[in-house]
Amino acid sequence: MKKFNVGIIGYGWVASAHIAAINATAHAQVTAVFSSRPLDETELSARHGSTITVYDRLEAMLANPSIDVVSICSYPQQHAAQAMQAARAGKHLIIEKPLCFSQKELRALETAIKKAGVKTCVCFECRYSSQFLATKAVIDQGLLGSLHYGEVDYYHGIGPWYGQFRWNTRKDAGGSALLTAGCHALDALLLCMGGDVAEVTSYASKSRSKTFAPYEYPTSSVTILKFKNGAVGKCAASVDCFQPYYFHTHLVGSEGSLLDNKFHSMKLGTDRHQWSALAMKMLDSGDVSDHPYTTQFEAFFKALAAGREMPLTSLAEAARTHEVIFAADRSAETGKPVRLG
Amino acid sequence: MKKFNVGIIGYGWVASAHIAAINATAHAQVTAVFSSRPLDETELSARHGSTITVYDRLEAMLANPSIDVVSICSYPQQHAAQAMQAARAGKHLIIEKPLCFSQKELRALETAIKKAGVKTCVCFECRYSSQFLATKAVIDQGLLGSLHYGEVDYYHGIGPWYGQFRWNTRKDAGGSALLTAGCHALDALLLCMGGDVAEVTSYASKSRSKTFAPYEYPTSSVTILKFKNGAVGKCAASVDCFQPYYFHTHLVGSEGSLLDNKFHSMKLGTDRHQWSALAMKMLDSGDVSDHPYTTQFEAFFKALAAGREMPLTSLAEAARTHEVIFAADRSAETGKPVRLG
Amino acid sequence: MKKFNVGIIGYGWVASAHIAAINATAHAQVTAVFSSRPLDETELSARHGSTITVYDRLEAMLANPSIDVVSICSYPQQHAAQAMQAARAGKHLIIEKPLCFSQKELRALETAIKKAGVKTCVCFECRYSSQFLATKAVIDQGLLGSLHYGEVDYYHGIGPWYGQFRWNTRKDAGGSALLTAGCHALDALLLCMGGDVAEVTSYASKSRSKTFAPYEYPTSSVTILKFKNGAVGKCAASVDCFQPYYFHTHLVGSEGSLLDNKFHSMKLGTDRHQWSALAMKMLDSGDVSDHPYTTQFEAFFKALAAGREMPLTSLAEAARTHEVIFAADRSAETGKPVRLG
Amino acid sequence: MKKFNVGIIGYGWVASAHIAAINATAHAQVTAVFSSRPLDETELSARHGSTITVYDRLEAMLANPSIDVVSICSYPQQHAAQAMQAARAGKHLIIEKPLCFSQKELRALETAIKKAGVKTCVCFECRYSSQFLATKAVIDQGLLGSLHYGEVDYYHGIGPWYGQFRWNTRKDAGGSALLTAGCHALDALLLCMGGDVAEVTSYASKSRSKTFAPYEYPTSSVTILKFKNGAVGKCAASVDCFQPYYFHTHLVGSEGSLLDNKFHSMKLGTDRHQWSALAMKMLDSGDVSDHPYTTQFEAFFKALAAGREMPLTSLAEAARTHEVIFAADRSAETGKPVRLG
Amino acid sequence: MKKFNVGIIGYGWVASAHIAAINATAHAQVTAVFSSRPLDETELSARHGSTITVYDRLEAMLANPSIDVVSICSYPQQHAAQAMQAARAGKHLIIEKPLCFSQKELRALETAIKKAGVKTCVCFECRYSSQFLATKAVIDQGLLGSLHYGEVDYYHGIGPWYGQFRWNTRKDAGGSALLTAGCHALDALLLCMGGDVAEVTSYASKSRSKTFAPYEYPTSSVTILKFKNGAVGKCAASVDCFQPYYFHTHLVGSEGSLLDNKFHSMKLGTDRHQWSALAMKMLDSGDVSDHPYTTQFEAFFKALAAGREMPLTSLAEAARTHEVIFAADRSAETGKPVRLG
Amino acid sequence: MKKFNVGIIGYGWVASAHIAAINATAHAQVTAVFSSRPLDETELSARHGSTITVYDRLEAMLANPSIDVVSICSYPQQHAAQAMQAARAGKHLIIEKPLCFSQKELRALETAIKKAGVKTCVCFECRYSSQFLATKAVIDQGLLGSLHYGEVDYYHGIGPWYGQFRWNTRKDAGGSALLTAGCHALDALLLCMGGDVAEVTSYASKSRSKTFAPYEYPTSSVTILKFKNGAVGKCAASVDCFQPYYFHTHLVGSEGSLLDNKFHSMKLGTDRHQWSALAMKMLDSGDVSDHPYTTQFEAFFKALAAGREMPLTSLAEAARTHEVIFAADRSAETGKPVRLG
Repeated sequence: MKKFNVGIIGYGWVASAHIAAINATAHAQVTAVFSSRPLDETELSARHGSTITVYDRLEAMLANPSIDVVSICSYPQQHAAQAMQAARAGKHLIIEKPLCFSQKELRALETAIKKAGVKTCVCFECRYSSQFLATKAVIDQGLLGSLHYGEVDYYHGIGPWYGQFRWNTRKDAGGSALLTAGCHALDALLLCMGGDVAEVTSYASKSRSKTFAPYEYPTSSVTILKFKNGAVGKCAASVDCFQPYYFHTHLVGSEGSLLDNKFHSMKLGTDRHQWSALAMKMLDSGDVSDHPYTTQFEAFFKALAAGREMPLTSLAEAARTHEVIFAADRSAETGKPVRLG
Repeated sequence: MKKFNVGIIGYGWVASAHIAAINATAHAQVTAVFSSRPLDETELSARHGSTITVYDRLEAMLANPSIDVVSICSYPQQHAAQAMQAARAGKHLIIEKPLCFSQKELRALETAIKKAGVKTCVCFECRYSSQFLATKAVIDQGLLGSLHYGEVDYYHGIGPWYGQFRWNTRKDAGGSALLTAGCHALDALLLCMGGDVAEVTSYASKSRSKTFAPYEYPTSSVTILKFKNGAVGKCAASVDCFQPYYFHTHLVGSEGSLLDNKFHSMKLGTDRHQWSALAMKMLDSGDVSDHPYTTQFEAFFKALAAGREMPLTSLAEAARTHEVIFAADRSAETGKPVRLG
Repeated sequence: MKKFNVGIIGYGWVASAHIAAINATAHAQVTAVFSSRPLDETELSARHGSTITVYDRLEAMLANPSIDVVSICSYPQQHAAQAMQAARAGKHLIIEKPLCFSQKELRALETAIKKAGVKTCVCFECRYSSQFLATKAVIDQGLLGSLHYGEVDYYHGIGPWYGQFRWNTRKDAGGSALLTAGCHALDALLLCMGGDVAEVTSYASKSRSKTFAPYEYPTSSVTILKFKNGAVGKCAASVDCFQPYYFHTHLVGSEGSLLDNKFHSMKLGTDRHQWSALAMKMLDSGDVSDHPYTTQFEAFFKALAAGREMPLTSLAEAARTHEVIFAADRSAETGKPVRLG
Repeated sequence: MKKFNVGIIGYGWVASAHIAAINATAHAQVTAVFSSRPLDETELSARHGSTITVYDRLEAMLANPSIDVVSICSYPQQHAAQAMQAARAGKHLIIEKPLCFSQKELRALETAIKKAGVKTCVCFECRYSSQFLATKAVIDQGLLGSLHYGEVDYYHGIGPWYGQFRWNTRKDAGGSALLTAGCHALDALLLCMGGDVAEVTSYASKSRSKTFAPYEYPTSSVTILKFKNGAVGKCAASVDCFQPYYFHTHLVGSEGSLLDNKFHSMKLGTDRHQWSALAMKMLDSGDVSDHPYTTQFEAFFKALAAGREMPLTSLAEAARTHEVIFAADRSAETGKPVRLG
Repeated sequence: MKKFNVGIIGYGWVASAHIAAINATAHAQVTAVFSSRPLDETELSARHGSTITVYDRLEAMLANPSIDVVSICSYPQQHAAQAMQAARAGKHLIIEKPLCFSQKELRALETAIKKAGVKTCVCFECRYSSQFLATKAVIDQGLLGSLHYGEVDYYHGIGPWYGQFRWNTRKDAGGSALLTAGCHALDALLLCMGGDVAEVTSYASKSRSKTFAPYEYPTSSVTILKFKNGAVGKCAASVDCFQPYYFHTHLVGSEGSLLDNKFHSMKLGTDRHQWSALAMKMLDSGDVSDHPYTTQFEAFFKALAAGREMPLTSLAEAARTHEVIFAADRSAETGKPVRLG
Repeated sequence: MKKFNVGIIGYGWVASAHIAAINATAHAQVTAVFSSRPLDETELSARHGSTITVYDRLEAMLANPSIDVVSICSYPQQHAAQAMQAARAGKHLIIEKPLCFSQKELRALETAIKKAGVKTCVCFECRYSSQFLATKAVIDQGLLGSLHYGEVDYYHGIGPWYGQFRWNTRKDAGGSALLTAGCHALDALLLCMGGDVAEVTSYASKSRSKTFAPYEYPTSSVTILKFKNGAVGKCAASVDCFQPYYFHTHLVGSEGSLLDNKFHSMKLGTDRHQWSALAMKMLDSGDVSDHPYTTQFEAFFKALAAGREMPLTSLAEAARTHEVIFAADRSAETGKPVRLG
């Protein structure tokens, strides 16, 4: 028997990816699912290869003492409240992005989790991708020197061909181009640049294509960031484009640059007029089944077993990223730069 | 005998490129050079293959009625005054970028040229490059639909290995990352996006490498632009990077996207998950001898012969680009968005 | 329940592909199969995921009023008679290529179908491939101008390693290199060139390899076509080659050329000395499971629902292609050019 | 001193290429030029690096007994008469293609040369290209087995940007798409297929682009060939296309196929579903300065020294190719197949 | 019913690959498995699709007269004894590499098999890979001429991520870098070079990485070989590297060279300064499920049916390879060259 | 005026490359040439762009006190004696490889140079190539960890098409495959592996092609090396192959491997199953005009100015490489391993 039992909140597209990934780790299995829709326990257990109890009331699932962790895979607007409820029930938390929709909600969530003393894993799983593990290693080996400019962008047309389009177009569910999807790019930018953000400015626009007309909010935006250490960053997010999925990264430092899977470092004596290339699996799909959940959850369960916060995607890092997103969206709405605390 | 005689102001690296390009056109030849350094007429004529008179006083050259056009290749801080002086002498103008260093200078220059009734060619020659002629044709054929987001960036490390580094590091000669080199990218962005700019915000930083320490101004910057038609744009400029020269273009529209020499258009029924590729010579060098001066000058001389302003790089377009640069640099200095008239 | 019920005639390699494709559409399901071989209804239904009744008499199946459409997947020499029988029974028709083996049979078939008032889908499914949808879009966007020369060819060694080799080698089943397989290339050529054919000449030959000795007819041929509008075309078909499958396309027009997935257009200002490239899935396999049947059938069922003939592959287009093939084969046999009506 | 002295007839674009190539061989030098335009002997000698006497009368040059060989680089319509005149003067012959414009002229030329007992090199120099030397070696090593179908095509837009366009558009100078340029492809096809031609049929057309309107004859054609051994061939020639230069080769035999620089051979046990690739310099330019004249002339001079006809491009091979071209052009004009003797 | 019944000795990773491959041939099926671990007959039969009897005593399986062939898939140190026991029982033999661990054991094995009159297939299946079938064909067609130098190497990090690492690190099971895995490369080298080996010298070393510390023997070695015909060869074997799997081949002969899937041959007239490329599936994985067992076993069963020894991997070839390995390992241990008989 | 005057000994192919490279440095110019052939001073000075005095007696040149350095570009068998003579005359030395032909000569040379107190640059210039500067940087950054196996090889057919073939085929001029050319590869191997060599074994052979028959010594060899630190190396050298020039490098260490311009490092978190790629100019030509002489000489002159031995290619490193070569050649001749001191 593996160490941790996990209960899932919500049973949709993302939940399927979470269950598969959790069951694929060496340390945990899914034993419960809460869903407002009726589900067949036998079929569910067979499909996922672990014995799963189905609950139609969240309170009932949270009352089960054998459940150690809950994973929140519901609609975005439900994440925060359910996370606080589960924390109060003493469950450790896996929370799909976004955590919440405002700075105020974020503070409440942090307080509740801190008070409950539970550990958290927020699904900024791109930090555990082959691409960003390697990118981070290149930075940490000093091959780029000290970074003074960086951009990470997210281009991915989310139209009717995409399951989440059905609800994602609503302002209260999607939020903004950054919040609904671009958050992965902004989060990766903060991972790479390292320091604290002093100020952001953001401009937003929207495609004139009929395909994307249902969106209630601007679906393309560009945000620039001033870091406290003097560095500058930028994050574009577009969910209304017609093109291949592109998670664009360009980092400029005192010893070299990195562009996606290419780099140049003065430390390796290579030809400055051509890029060297790193073998890595690129983030080239928005499909959650391609995302590195298993690696991330493995790290979370190891940290839980050791009684520590997990590396890279604990609440602290994720909260920092959300604060920057909220500031950026406020800037786009108000038309003014927004300073961070 | 070709139609137009051209006098060159200043005799350095850029002048050599201009002379070769002018002599390579079908309509003009260089017949005079003004330089404060002593030059040997015979050797100069032999090197460039046309009979060249050398002047050590600008007034003298401008007084020669056989000269139809002057090309201003002096230090940047001399461009504006010399251009006004030549215009007053009735000469048509080829002016290397930048035109000048402030909005006020720009207005004075526009007034002087208008009063003199001469025609102007400003060296934003990238508009005549294979890359941007093709990019513009793709936009004009409607393959991208209506653009709502675009970015064009300039990455080119200008260090001690580069001739212009000697004077370019000074604030009064280089000006800013945008003004000294990134202007080509900003100009190309305006070409592609088409509409008028309503507002810009810019953040700037500087490499911590010793190599770039001599620069008196921030050598990397990122500028975001709000267009009057609702579209949004972005231009990064870095002259303090260690990497291959990169003129990055990414345009997002209602029918497709273009990324450098790659594109996708819903109108061609191609696979949205892969880029199609356009055969074009990329801008991949900061070396003026690689720049499409000949094509640009040919267009200028044809327009002169027809008594018209030239297409793409006349004073009007160039002035618009300079205004945006001045606004961006002011934003970076003041820390506030700057609106355009 | 989806709208249309389909009965299949014949149960071999092609039938499996048809059933999978029909069941994958949103509008129809296979509910019946007629086969002279005994089949197990339960196993068949399980394999294909729809409830299928098996008939050992075609009349019986055609008498079932719940069947809206029949799909003819029998041996080539049976297609025409079965199609007429099914039409008379009031069934709409999906007919595998070839329709028949002579101009006379073709006229009879057309008459029968017209009289019955049923709609028809002929399996020239390559018109619905990614490759030819994109190729056609490029032509329709005017990027090639007006075509004056075009060639589409079919190279695919059909030897003992291939299921259909067993019967395909017979003159009365295979017919000719064009009829048995090259018809897809000829049909694609007519799609691209657009106009009516005035005359064809064809030469044929045969490999000296023992592998292909069983064929009773020439297995390589080349046909040239004169169009009424003055354009010229060419189609080579070889089923006796040892090489990768190759569906070669080369179109030459007044604004550019297209070669397979490459093209040049004067309208895009790209470099004439290099090909631009279109992202498309190439036709690179003779395996029917790789063919775009689902797209084609979806279009057919949508047209049926709207009471219209389907686009691209209705009887009218297919009849035109067969007429040209019959003329080409007659030319190869008689050694003379053959004019079309 | 090298062995053979060569006199050049005509001094244009092609002559420059011939002189450079002849002087680059180990066995001959150019010592005379006949031109109707006045030329400066000193400048000519300096430019080409050999002492050259200029003649303004052909008779005078032919009367010079020190000249061993003449190379005929005049306008196409002059080739035959000048060749006969030179042969009668006892000079060995290098003749640019085409030899002449009719079967009758060809017979007269053959008779005159035979009677004079001189040796001939006809400029079908593509036979000496890296591409066709390797292609021929692959055939000769038996890697393709016995060929039963082959096509070699010529696509090269010859428009106003091309020197020869000035006169090439005239019927009496260019002749036909095949004669003016496509002859290289037809000649290469005959080289590869090996046997004698029994019959040809040809269809011709013309671009609707204004660029190519000056041509007085059809500028695209496709010709199919029946060989006496049962094999079939095809040659397309287009000088009115907008695309990269393309010398397309596709050979199909009993042991494998060759497509340009790719091949598959059953004898090498490689994967039949992928092409193997041959390292060779492709014919990818119509520019005579890229053509393998030196290799061809070296072979001619070696044969001369040995008193033999040269391999690959002697009069016999070239006459055969011309006969096929004349037959093809007659077929295109008459609309009927044409048999060869 | 297929002709030959096969019993498997040992049921691990390799056995699974053997069973699948044997059942995939047209001539044999697996009907028995001997394993010291208890196995479920029903489940085993279902998994492999043939009716399998499970034995827990080897003698019992060997006593079953319906079994024609045994395949030895046990631990390496058991191979020789079990092979002799099975041979004595009159069974034909499939033996996984290595055959044994010493020259003395090898002689005993050869004697026992010869005495029993059974046929043998030794699993040097790389000889049946696409890569070496093509490489051998290139040599046999004479395209490389006579070989005077050749190297075939094996680079494949076998660490804890690899199933066999568990026991392979032991000296008595793995033996040496050559014996445990590099044997495939040495065997391929002997296949290519053809002649008999006169002498070998070998040097060995070991990675300083902790990952590979458990190995009880040197895990990298390089061996050079003197052939009786004067040619020289070399084989490096490394199982302690961190890099992509690489089966490196470089052959140098009197007409050309082959490097992996690239080659140059003077006989094909291709460009000597670039490699031509052969389409072949490369050996790029140590995973037995990627190895060409089916092709090898098919050849074995065909030879059995014909009463002949199989080509390429019979006992004679494999014994020769083992002798060279034993000599190389003795050389590495003694520090002296070792001559072969 | 630049600091150092250089006199050249011998005026052939290599001398031309030396003179160009020396004159291209910032610190020295060639002012004298000694040659046994009569040379024209004026023409020589013009060709090389520096004023050059020609000497026909070496003593005379060495007696000129204005000459600081001599560069020895004579036949290999003259190098050692001339170097000692020049050293005695107090000249600093540039010496083309090889230094000498025996260990005894080497000792004498070292003694003479030490006694004279002059500095030395030996032309193992590949150490200054882009390829090995980058390779060394990768090792020095620790990306490969500690190396335990390495091979660097030299494949370059030196036949009649190559200038040095004329004398290089002689035993007393070429020496061995290693000495005449492979020395660059062996030297690079020692550079990469770092430690001292304990023992070598070498086997040699020769092509059966007529092209290479003139060679008086074995023209292919393979040498294996045991290092004192336990690592193992290998160097193959072939000057009798028909293939592209190939300087093959494969290094295996405790953190990764490098293969030519590809590498994998566990420290960068990249995908172990694919190679990352380094942008570097590869050594892909034996032509001395492609060799990095200028970089090497620049380093020598800087060291001279500072009164230090130069890095990478001073006498000490070169002597070590020669000792290993002499040992390897002795091993190939005696058939026994040879230990180094």
